Formats: sequence, C-alpha cells, structure tokens
Amino acid sequence: MKSKQFLLLMIALFGIATTFEGCKPKGAGSAVSAGAAEKTYVAPGQYDEFYNFVSGGFSGQLSVYGLPSGRLLRVIPVFSLDPEKGWGFSEETKPMLETSHGTVPWDDLHHVQLSKTDGDYDGRWVFVNGNNTPRIARIDLTTFRTAEILELPNSGGNHSSPYITENTEYVVAGTRFSVPMDGDDSDTPINTYKKNFKGTLSFVSVNKDNGHMDIAFQIETPGVNFDLSRAGKGVSHGWFFFSTYNTELASTLLEVNASKNDKDFVLAVNWKKAEEYLKAGKGKKVSNVKYAHNIYDETSHTSTSTIKNEVIVLNSAELEGLCYFIPCPKSPHGVDVDPTGEYIVSSGKLAALIPVFSFSKIQKAIESKSFEGEFAGIPVIKYEAALHGEVEKPGLGPLHTEFDGKGNAITSFFVSSELVKWNIKDLKILDRVPTFYSVGHLMIPGGDTKNPDAKYVVAYNKITKDRFLPTGPELAHSAQIYDITGDKMQLILDFPTIGEPHYAQAIRAEKVKDKSVKIFKLEENKHPYFTNGESAAKVERNGNKVHVYVTTIRSHFTPDNIEGIQMGDEVYFHVTNIEQDWDMPHGFAIKGANNGELLIMPGETQTLKWVPDRIGIFPMYCTDFCSALHQEMSGYVRVSPKGSNVPITFSVGTNQPTDTQ
Amino acid sequence: MKSKQFLLLMIALFGIATTFEGCKPKGAGSAVSAGAAEKTYVAPGQYDEFYNFVSGGFSGQLSVYGLPSGRLLRVIPVFSLDPEKGWGFSEETKPMLETSHGTVPWDDLHHVQLSKTDGDYDGRWVFVNGNNTPRIARIDLTTFRTAEILELPNSGGNHSSPYITENTEYVVAGTRFSVPMDGDDSDTPINTYKKNFKGTLSFVSVNKDNGHMDIAFQIETPGVNFDLSRAGKGVSHGWFFFSTYNTELASTLLEVNASKNDKDFVLAVNWKKAEEYLKAGKGKKVSNVKYAHNIYDETSHTSTSTIKNEVIVLNSAELEGLCYFIPCPKSPHGVDVDPTGEYIVSSGKLAALIPVFSFSKIQKAIESKSFEGEFAGIPVIKYEAALHGEVEKPGLGPLHTEFDGKGNAITSFFVSSELVKWNIKDLKILDRVPTFYSVGHLMIPGGDTKNPDAKYVVAYNKITKDRFLPTGPELAHSAQIYDITGDKMQLILDFPTIGEPHYAQAIRAEKVKDKSVKIFKLEENKHPYFTNGESAAKVERNGNKVHVYVTTIRSHFTPDNIEGIQMGDEVYFHVTNIEQDWDMPHGFAIKGANNGELLIMPGETQTLKWVPDRIGIFPMYCTDFCSALHQEMSGYVRVSPKGSNVPITFSVGTNQPTDTQ
Repeated sequence: MKSKQFLLLMIALFGIATTFEGCKPKGAGSAVSAGAAEKTYVAPGQYDEFYNFVSGGFSGQLSVYGLPSGRLLRVIPVFSLDPEKGWGFSEETKPMLETSHGTVPWDDLHHVQLSKTDGDYDGRWVFVNGNNTPRIARIDLTTFRTAEILELPNSGGNHSSPYITENTEYVVAGTRFSVPMDGDDSDTPINTYKKNFKGTLSFVSVNKDNGHMDIAFQIETPGVNFDLSRAGKGVSHGWFFFSTYNTELASTLLEVNASKNDKDFVLAVNWKKAEEYLKAGKGKKVSNVKYAHNIYDETSHTSTSTIKNEVIVLNSAELEGLCYFIPCPKSPHGVDVDPTGEYIVSSGKLAALIPVFSFSKIQKAIESKSFEGEFAGIPVIKYEAALHGEVEKPGLGPLHTEFDGKGNAITSFFVSSELVKWNIKDLKILDRVPTFYSVGHLMIPGGDTKNPDAKYVVAYNKITKDRFLPTGPELAHSAQIYDITGDKMQLILDFPTIGEPHYAQAIRAEKVKDKSVKIFKLEENKHPYFTNGESAAKVERNGNKVHVYVTTIRSHFTPDNIEGIQMGDEVYFHVTNIEQDWDMPHGFAIKGANNGELLIMPGETQTLKWVPDRIGIFPMYCTDFCSALHQEMSGYVRVSPKGSNVPITFSVGTNQPTDTQ
Repeated sequence: MKSKQFLLLMIALFGIATTFEGCKPKGAGSAVSAGAAEKTYVAPGQYDEFYNFVSGGFSGQLSVYGLPSGRLLRVIPVFSLDPEKGWGFSEETKPMLETSHGTVPWDDLHHVQLSKTDGDYDGRWVFVNGNNTPRIARIDLTTFRTAEILELPNSGGNHSSPYITENTEYVVAGTRFSVPMDGDDSDTPINTYKKNFKGTLSFVSVNKDNGHMDIAFQIETPGVNFDLSRAGKGVSHGWFFFSTYNTELASTLLEVNASKNDKDFVLAVNWKKAEEYLKAGKGKKVSNVKYAHNIYDETSHTSTSTIKNEVIVLNSAELEGLCYFIPCPKSPHGVDVDPTGEYIVSSGKLAALIPVFSFSKIQKAIESKSFEGEFAGIPVIKYEAALHGEVEKPGLGPLHTEFDGKGNAITSFFVSSELVKWNIKDLKILDRVPTFYSVGHLMIPGGDTKNPDAKYVVAYNKITKDRFLPTGPELAHSAQIYDITGDKMQLILDFPTIGEPHYAQAIRAEKVKDKSVKIFKLEENKHPYFTNGESAAKVERNGNKVHVYVTTIRSHFTPDNIEGIQMGDEVYFHVTNIEQDWDMPHGFAIKGANNGELLIMPGETQTLKWVPDRIGIFPMYCTDFCSALHQEMSGYVRVSPKGSNVPITFSVGTNQPTDTQ
C-alpha cells in the first residue's frame, strides 16, 4: 500500500474510533441482558464458578478474579516489588527479582497461560511473561505464589509468550524487539538494523514433576517483530505458530515504516523437527550469554537466583523443514488455533478481513513445495495454498480470537470496539456486540483448549472513559462479561481491573480450589533460621551481624524487648509464624525504619534485614490485625552507639520495672 | 481484675471466637436479604452511588471502591512504592517518599478522613495516616492523587489519626507507641519506660485555600498508648477525644501487662484552650526535631521535600484546662462522637459493656471539679460524672461505632463477629447481625458527620477464611454490605479488599465526580523539562548528564532513535504526553533497564532516570496500550563505551537505511 493510501486508512481508523467513543449509549442501554443482576450475583458465602487469572500489564503482577462476580480475590506479586506482601523486601523473596543485570523492581506482565495436560487445563500452574526484561514466571496454584522466574538471553522484549503446548512440554518466548545477539559486544549503530538485529524464539521445557523450567533451545530468526503465538493442538500438535509484524525490518517510526507491506507473516515452527535437529547435534552452543534463573522453595521458604551462561541455538535459515512463513494481511496481532488444531486464525490489525489457515493445507503446501519464494532463507508458503478462507468485512482492527467449542470463533476488534462471532467452517458472521470501549484481548474459559467451557466471553478493554465513576485523569481499565450460552452474546457486567488486562484465562473452580494449601506445616519448615517454638527464640551476634530468631503467635512476639544492637550492625529479624490455623498471618515491621514489612503465613519463616541509621528506641509491631489484642502485639528494639557496652538481651514479659515512675 | 481472672476472660474470648468461626452458615444462608442481587447490581454504563475510600492497611495505599457494587475503581499510591503507576520511580514522585531519615518505600496506612465543612463532607480532600513512619497524607479529590505528605516528630507510631475537626481546622495524630522525645539523643534503656517514654498529640492545621498542612502544636502527655480519636462536633466543637490503652505504662508483653487495669482512659482535649495558650506564648519551641514535608504541585508536575526543624509543644500536665482523663472500661479502642456532638461512645475491647459519655455532663464535671484524682498531672473526671449510661451485654470485643442520624448507633464486635444496633438515648439494643468473620471497623456513608446518609453499613472484616474461592495460605480481607434502610440490617454483598481495610469513608458521588480533572492542559504545563510539541524534542548533554526531551502521542515517540549515550552517563528521559483527550495515558520504559516505568497522563511531563550498566541497544516502548498501532510505538537507544566518539543524534522516521540488508 502506498504511503498516501496508508495515511488515509489511518485517518479513517482513528476517525471511526473517535466517533465510536463519542456516541456510546448512556446508561445500561438495550445491550444489557435481562436478568443480568441474578446472572452475575454471587451471594455472600457462595463461591464464584471460575478463577479468572488476569494479566496485570504494567503493574507486573497477576490478578485473580472470580467469575461471574468480577471480584478481585488476590493480586499475586510476580515481577514487581509489592510493598503490601513484602515481595522483594524480605531476604527470602529478594532473589526472585534478580536478573543477569542486577535487581529489577518492575516489569510489564503480558500473557497468562494455564498449564495443560492433553490439551485441557490441569490446574497445576500459571505461566506469565515479562515483556520488559525478557522473562517467564511460573505461579504455583497450590499456594497462589510465584515459584520460579527464568530470564531469556538474546531477546529485547518477550511479547509472544508464554504460550504452551498441549502437554506443557514447552513454554515459548519470541522476541518482540529484535536486537543484536547478546554475545555481540560491539557498539552497533541503529541504522545497521537489517544486518545486525535478530529475532529469537525460545523453547522452554517444563519438568512434569516439579514444573522447573529450562531453555531447551532457541531458534535464531531474521529481525522481524514477533507479536503473539499459539501452539498447535490435536492434528497440529508438534507445531507452533507466531504472528510477525515489521517484516519491513524498520527501526524508526514503526507506526508508518512497519505498516507498509500489505502482508506480513505467520511463522510456522515444527518443534518436533527442532528436537530431531537438537538430538542430531545441529544446535550451536552459545556460551557468551548471561541469564538468571530464580526458584522459590516452599519447604525452606527461601529462594535462590542462579546465573546461567549457555544456550543452544538453532538457525532458522539453515535447518530445512524447521520454519515456514505464511503471508498474512496486514500487521497480524493475534494468532489463534481452534479446538481441533486444524484452523489457525491470524488477525491483521490493519486488515479488512480475517484469514483462516488450514493446518492440513499447510502440510500439503510444504509437501508440494507451494512456495512463493523465501524471506531471509525461510520458505514462504503461497497464501492461497495455506488458506482455508477469509472472514469478509468482519469489523475494524481485529486483534484476538477465542473459540466456543461449538464450531464458532469470537474475535475482538479494537478500532470498531466490538466482539464478532463467526462460524469457523463457513466463515459467516453470526453475531456482533459493542464493547465499551476499545477491546484488546478477550477470553472464553478454556477458549484455547480442546474443550472450551463456553458460558461467558470476557472483553478486556483498553479504554474506560465514562464507564465507572471518574477518578481523575487516570482510570482503571475495564472488563466486560457477556453471557454466550444463547445464540446472541449478551452483556451482563462491567468490572474494572488492576493495571492493564492483557490476556486472561479462566478455569473451573473445582480444578483448583481443593488443592489450595491453607497453612505451611511447622514440622516441615526447613528454613535455616527457623525458630522451633518460643523457647527457641534468641538473638545471636556474629561480628556486626545480629540474627534475631523471633516467633509470632496471637498476641505477642518472642522476644519483644531487644537491647544490645549497635550502630553499624546489620540486623536480621527471622520471624517464624508459629500459628497453624488458616488465614492467621502476622505482619512484622519496625517503626520508622526504611526497609518495608514482612507478611508471614502460618508455619512460615521470613526475614527482614535492617541497618539502623540512628540510635534510639524503635517500636516493632504486628502489621496485620490478628486478634482482639492485636494492638498490644508490639515491642521495642534499642539501638545504642557503636562500641557501646550494652549487652545483647532479649525477653518477653520479664523486664517490667517497678522502681521507676 | 486479677491475673487469673484475666486469663479466664482471654480463654473465654478466644474460645468463643474459635467456636464462632467454626460454625458459620454455609452458603448464602438466611442472613442474605431478598432482592440483594438487584440492590447491589450496577448495570454496565451506570455509576455507583457512593465513592468508598478504603484504607489499604499494610499496602500503604488508599483504595477507591464503588458502592453498592463493591468494584475497585482505583488504588491511589500514597506511602508505598507503586510499580504500576511509577510512584516513587519517577523523578517527580521520588521526593514524596522522603522522610527525615531518607527514602521509605512502605508504610501501614490506617484511617481515612474526608475533609469537612460545617461538619459534613465537602468532597475536597481525603486525609490518611501512616502508622509506621508517623505521617499524614492529603489526597486531592480533583486528581485522585496524593498531594502532600507531612512527617510527625516526637512520635513512635501514628494510629489515632488523621481525625479532623468539623471545618477541617485540624487533622490530629496521636502517638500509639510512646518513645523518648526526638530531642533526647541519650541511649535509653527500655526499662526506664515510665520515666522516659512520652506520648504526643499533634494538631496539624490545614490551609483552607490549598489544603497545605502545618504542625500547629503538639501536646506532650504521659506514655500511655493513644489508639483512636474523634473531634467533637456541634455542641462539643472545640474538643477532641482520644482513647488510650496501656495506662499501666508497660513496655513488654502488652497482651497481659497492658490489660491489667479495669479501666483505662478517654482523654478529652480542649483545643480552643490550646489555641489560647499558644497565643499567650505558653508553648515551648523545640528545635532539635527533624521532619519532612513533601508537596506535589500539579502545575509543574513535580514535588519537593523540605526538612523542618521546629515544633511548638504544650505540656498537658502544666497547662490547666487543656486535658482531662475520663475513666473507660477496659482497653478502649474506638472513641466515636454522635451526629449532635453530645454523646461520646468509647468501646473497651475487653469490656462487657459500652459506656456512653455525655459532653454536657463532662463540662459540668469540669466546672464542679468532680475529679477522682489525677494521672501524671492530668485531672481524672469521675466515671459516673461523665457517663450518660452503659449499653449492657452488647456482645464481645466492641471496637467501633458509627451513627445513622436517626438516633441510633451501630457497633462492631470483633470477638463475637457481629454488628449491633442500639439507641443512643435509651441504650436499648435494637438489632444484631453476624459478620463473616471478625469485624474491625464499620462504615455508614457520612456516619461520622452531622448528617449521616444511612443507606448502607459496611463491615470491614479481619478474617475471611472460606468466604471466597481459596487462594493459598493468603486470603484477601473482606467487606460486607448491609442494607440499613429498614429496621433490621440485611446482608446484601460480600466483596474482597486490597491490603487491610482499616477504616473507610463513603461520600455521595455527586459531591466529587463533576470536579474530577480529566486532562492536564498542555498550555498550563510548567514542568522545567516540558517539551512543547514534537518540534521542541531534543537531547542535551551537560557533562555526564544527558537530558532527553521526549513527546508521546499516538503512536510514536519523538525522538525514537537516540545515539551518543555513553557508559557513565546519567540519562533523564523527560516524557511529555502531548495528548489532550481523557483516558489517553502513555507509558514509558526501557527494555531490560533496572529502573521501573513511567505512566504519563495527557498534558503531563514525567521523568525516568537511567544509568546504563552495559553497552548495547536498548529498545524503549509505550507500556500502556494506546491505539491500533501501540505495538509499533517503540524506538531504540544506543549505549556506547565511555569516551566513544559517537555523537549525540536523535530522530524519528528519518534514518531508515536502504543500503544494508
């Protein structure tokens, strides 16, 4: 498309978007389903039907909502500091935020993937990707806590991630921003992009027993931008599909320069073939990389960060049969695979149609070499040879597609702000409903599995404007729930979200709730500074390091009076919560200190490091209201001058003076 | 009460609590009101009736919920780092987290107070207190952002805060943990508590025009623990009431040692008298203190932190008529003043009754010197002389009371997990409903004003257990909404909350929503590094400091390619969002950097500091999905070795090479 035509399209797109936003129906309007209140109401004491794991976007965290109530059940800290939960503040959690380049306090969490067995959610783990510092994290669904974070080398952004295969064999990660490979330490000019900037696709293996991740291999590709991806399933198991944009290989003003080609590509990767090449020693061992691998252990209640230095790289251009490009109009965003695995839907955000590719046709095209040429050494399959068909005039700005398991697809349209339902086989449009406003991702529970549980579709919208009471210049993003049990989609609830709701997934509560850990057993606590009961509480000096072994139980700390700390000391409060009842956490903080707080679950040990910056008396207290006598759950720490002869003493309830008033 | 008796009471209290939790009704149960779904449902596109400002507790932030939907509309960062919003990460917000002892990344936010005019909410500001580092913050309700934070000297915890007078003349702050006064630099043994540890009450004035706070005076008191407080109103305007516990002046195992006295005190403070003493020069100027005063300016979009060194202290024992103790059974927690100002309800959490004091009787007792003696130089009014009457057998563990404006009070009971409604005049109990589970604070919209808007009461509960789908060992706290328009309180909704919901207040949406700022006007932007349009974008080197003047607008940065940065540089990205549409923020982050992100509202300038730690190519991108071409909104920064001769260049769209592939 010529530049002038492109600009006209842009004007049209944004013109329509503006108009659309300007004329939204006020109030509930006709779009809201009758009986919607009853359909979304979860009465006090009742449970929601689904856990909805929603990306927190630029918060770096993962939110857990109940569906259909839209209630926020928990924010799970993943990539960012969380002052509320002490995540990144306790000694035990600090290693989780380490990277190959030091501590990173924040990330941009994008997509959410529930682990799968036989192509259905198994309720074991949730994987999420960090889009800024390229990382993948695994959350354990017995504890709802982050269990592992793996950094990815040779990547400048990790957007098309952490999509997974049907038995969680692999979690993938494709570079959004191509960069010079990590090993290349030269000072690279930006205008040598086409020569020096590369993409990579990382295939991360997952241990079936404990979930531990490892980079099995990377595939080096030309410097296109990888946007999203999905694994094949059923008939297409063994393949992975990635959408690409910027096949123009532009490095500036991508808004224009990466929007010139009428078609970009879907990249089809044969990962079973990759395994063969790997076994045959065709991978290149690269040892000049650096990436962190962080694991949290819920027995020792500690985490470790290990720097790794090796990765195996396969070359996409050299290894035949590994990668194929499929032309796709225009700047495709989502690439989604239907429940059978036969149909691959890729939505070009600047396209006026949606192409649906056929896996069996792709295989035939490869066999018969129906190629239109190659791009950077990778064969390009003829568009028509891969195509099942096109959805015509579907809407403006198609982004993502989910499936209902009844032969239908629902696609989100950012520019025309709507969801459109269409039939996968005959490509006919069946229904369309407005979203308020510009929808990004959408989600059907199990919508990317072999067996969707198609009761609701949820739209996760990028613009909220006047949907909720105004809160100044910054507004929450929003989600909208539609009932899809009938032929027509019916809007039943709006709810606001934390951060930015990129992709989300939802799972039936039954698959998760009964596995939930309620307490950590004290007798299993292997923390190196575990305090086994109040009688074991103590304070130990080792040079300028002071270790305080503290217990908490309603409604006191042992010890609660500590003297003999000196300026220049590093003090470690190792706090063991010796409660063994569910929902009986204690908090720990030192008044006026500059280090944050601990939140300690029953049976757990957590450590707060404190380097006192002044002499004086410092109250310490429980920060989580725990009992009728919570306000009394406090004590004092005395900090003396350096070299003071005040001995280390610690006690609870014994040093009450009677002689002074 | 003797020690053995006390222990029996404790066993009884916790025994009952345990039993109660063990037998909660499963499911919705009979407690849920008919028609509850319709009563709490807010249809898509409709607004909630009330803004509910809810303390985030140990998150350090303030949550804004809609009532009756229970939807979380916004988390306002106050005392803690917020990676989501860049709070504490941008150069503009870093000063807001400064204290007299450096940056503090966290606090424990407790209570919420809407500003008042004539004893009713005026919708201008919300005040909140930091319980860890003693501070008060003011949130501006035109922007829903933190506008000011004031630290408090001579304080070891600030719990009985930030309660305010009926025209927002003062915001108060009472020390929860007594400590040696700041000026006392001696190394103080803990067992000299009774001699050396003091309480203080800070009276902070509020400028009527711009809300700016200032410590008008402090009152030095004996070392009791101040728990909560309320201003007088109407007839009692000019007085302030504080609950105290630990009148035993214990410093260890307070659970036992501060629970010995059968009665503790309510402290009545005549602040009009304090003003007279101040005018008469009776205050002591104390100049060996240190506290930070941080102000955010929404025109320059920057904040400043100033360290102050002076405070005026009044002595509670020496200045006659300033302070009076009123005996109150037993370890009182809440102290609440009814809409008329005549009745003061103070709930002893270990008491088996609720005393209601009469302001006019207190005045008569003072006139007639009906004192039973004095405590630390302060007269103690005879209990019976101050008493209106007692609510008998109300429940176990009374904590807080709110008022319905129809002559009734509703009190929360932590141990017996219930709300109890009673008549203020005749002290008869009218109704009781269970809460699930242990309720702390409760809230009626306007419940502490002269004119409560008594449609709902909300219970903010400390224990959740099985009310929502389980999320591992850590569960959200919960709130429960009861309809109180009829004679009987009817439970209509449970909703989970962020952090810990200490006190909350709610205000009719009409009083706030139309004042909400939607954008910052570009022509009013006075930021020192404001970039006035794309043509003004530039990069300036000044020694090793590099200032990048960047603009953002859908869908590009200007500039987006930057070269000439060197190792050893401090780079400041001053990003101006030149959009002027509501809900059109942009984000800014540098891939793989270790500094967090910016979230920039339309018309605003924010700065991200970056000290590159390695040479290479660093993508930069918009972190908040902004348009159909958001994924294209990116660029590259090149970092060269120190001493490199790569010149500073910056551009957008112009350096696309054609000669390399």
